[in-house]
Amino acid sequence: MKNKVRLFGTELKSLKNETKKTVPRVPRVSRVSQSQKNAKKGNWKMKNIIDILIDKIKETNNPTVMGLDPRFEMLPKCVTDKYPKTLEGVADAIIEYNKALIDETFDIIPAVKPQIAFYEMFGLPGMKAFEETCKYAKEKGMLVIVDAKRGDIGSTAAGYSNAFLGKTKIGDVEESIFDVDFLTVNPYMGSDCVKPFIEDCKKYNKGLFILVKTSNPSSGELQDIKLENGDEVYTTVAKLVEKWGEDLRGEYGYSSIAAVVGATYPEQLQSIRKTAPHTYFLIPGYGAQGGKASDIALGFDGNGLGGIVNASRSLMCAYKSDLWKDKFAEVDYAKATRAEAIRMRDELNSAF
Amino acid sequence: MKNKVRLFGTELKSLKNETKKTVPRVPRVSRVSQSQKNAKKGNWKMKNIIDILIDKIKETNNPTVMGLDPRFEMLPKCVTDKYPKTLEGVADAIIEYNKALIDETFDIIPAVKPQIAFYEMFGLPGMKAFEETCKYAKEKGMLVIVDAKRGDIGSTAAGYSNAFLGKTKIGDVEESIFDVDFLTVNPYMGSDCVKPFIEDCKKYNKGLFILVKTSNPSSGELQDIKLENGDEVYTTVAKLVEKWGEDLRGEYGYSSIAAVVGATYPEQLQSIRKTAPHTYFLIPGYGAQGGKASDIALGFDGNGLGGIVNASRSLMCAYKSDLWKDKFAEVDYAKATRAEAIRMRDELNSAF
Repeated sequence: MKNKVRLFGTELKSLKNETKKTVPRVPRVSRVSQSQKNAKKGNWKMKNIIDILIDKIKETNNPTVMGLDPRFEMLPKCVTDKYPKTLEGVADAIIEYNKALIDETFDIIPAVKPQIAFYEMFGLPGMKAFEETCKYAKEKGMLVIVDAKRGDIGSTAAGYSNAFLGKTKIGDVEESIFDVDFLTVNPYMGSDCVKPFIEDCKKYNKGLFILVKTSNPSSGELQDIKLENGDEVYTTVAKLVEKWGEDLRGEYGYSSIAAVVGATYPEQLQSIRKTAPHTYFLIPGYGAQGGKASDIALGFDGNGLGGIVNASRSLMCAYKSDLWKDKFAEVDYAKATRAEAIRMRDELNSAF
Repeated sequence: MKNKVRLFGTELKSLKNETKKTVPRVPRVSRVSQSQKNAKKGNWKMKNIIDILIDKIKETNNPTVMGLDPRFEMLPKCVTDKYPKTLEGVADAIIEYNKALIDETFDIIPAVKPQIAFYEMFGLPGMKAFEETCKYAKEKGMLVIVDAKRGDIGSTAAGYSNAFLGKTKIGDVEESIFDVDFLTVNPYMGSDCVKPFIEDCKKYNKGLFILVKTSNPSSGELQDIKLENGDEVYTTVAKLVEKWGEDLRGEYGYSSIAAVVGATYPEQLQSIRKTAPHTYFLIPGYGAQGGKASDIALGFDGNGLGGIVNASRSLMCAYKSDLWKDKFAEVDYAKATRAEAIRMRDELNSAF
């Protein structure tokens, strides 16, 4: 990564030397990031959202996005025990858990990615937890990428876009709804289904991550199929995304119309980097799904830019992992997440 | 349609002869349908959900699903004027409007299809209106197809499936969330993203409509691309859907794993009917989008079965349409919807 600042270069070693169940002291940088300072000066609105994301990645020296996918089984007992076993109770537990994770990481991780399925599955209380999580992360200066993989015909896509990126009109009144920074979008229905989102990206300075090559085992069933012209379906989509993003390129040369490309298919990751040189990547599949830091490096450019790597379970459940469970008590679950975030950051950086 | 019962054969003519602004008397069948009688006898659970849908289509002699996509501009002023211009106010207006439409049509239309985007765009109050709409339609004996076009990697798909079709586990407790009959699903990520939904379809007797060929102008960009083997992408997906549904075929020979195929591409509709003979179709694109009854007939089999045709705007906003605006006062908007539902039903039946 360009201008590497190894602020945390020695942290991992010191953490590993800590004794069981004691809480390691983890040094912190200032809680007010450069992006937040810019925001206070009112500079945010003038920058393309992809530049804001890249600036935050450079400031934190960390191309990581923390996936916030709170399944009930993942929540620490010390949190869930406080609340009743109802939808409302779980929603409150999720809010407490997410806020604690955000509090411990907002100075070292540039963005969060709540996966909306894990909130919707808890009904209306779950959606309230989703809304509060997005709001809290933004207040702390993190960028919010909502993973909802929306896609529908034009007028319906406009409805989704209102919900996440734009505003909803009620007569003469305009209301912001979830108002997040980026949304994941499914391209199966073609360009007129993506356009309403792109229009709101232009109007409100938001961004998209459009599915190109996903990280799951069966992604190839459709995405890898060879076409008559020799391209694969994913190459066709990558070319479309590159084209859709032409008007929205920022100062780093990347567009706010970006792509989802999984870490689990390194060959395709490398090939799509060439097909779509102005397209930033959201890279899922690191860790639990099998993607390695050296695979992920193939999606990056010569300047150490080009992607942001998602980790959900490995960060959220660090307190349960083999690496950290003996170092942190359950009640220090968020500190375990911070330690894992630092380890992951250093592993990624050492691969670039 | 097999066993045609032209209960309403003469209604349309009589409606057209009514004078301006008087409310036509529209005859009604018994509000308790055969399906509801079966449900009371506890027979529902024994029938495949696709058979329940087909039975209702046959009983009402109407292969129509009413799309419930409540944009603010569509709501009658006599409804919106009662509520404040806030998210909560609009949500209350939507609930009143949807309930009125359901009250006027549940004996003549077998199912409703709320498009979740048009609820999500009103935030949490909108999602409450969505939940209440689904619940009310079910209470009235209508089947509920939620149009959400969900699709994600396995564990996330399971989250969505919990929300709409299955149940959410909270420790030892299991909670039903939206608990609807059918969900639309996007296949771009392949079979392991569809499987969690199919498992819940088996376990809870639910169904899917998987996007095969959508009705929008740019659907061909990806879906029509020719593959090396000579198939189009949509043909590949149609074959996958037919295969995924093999274990879930009901007594009419159709599977509860069904497909979305647009009315706006009659050639493809006909071709997919041949490719996927056991796959029921949800057919959007009738009316406003340009699909004609004669086009739609190509998706049906020799017995008049094979599809359910969506109409959203033409039914919901019948009170504003050229055909009905002079016959119904705004306050009778739901009666205009009933009249249009009857007109549409007769038009569809005359084409088969």
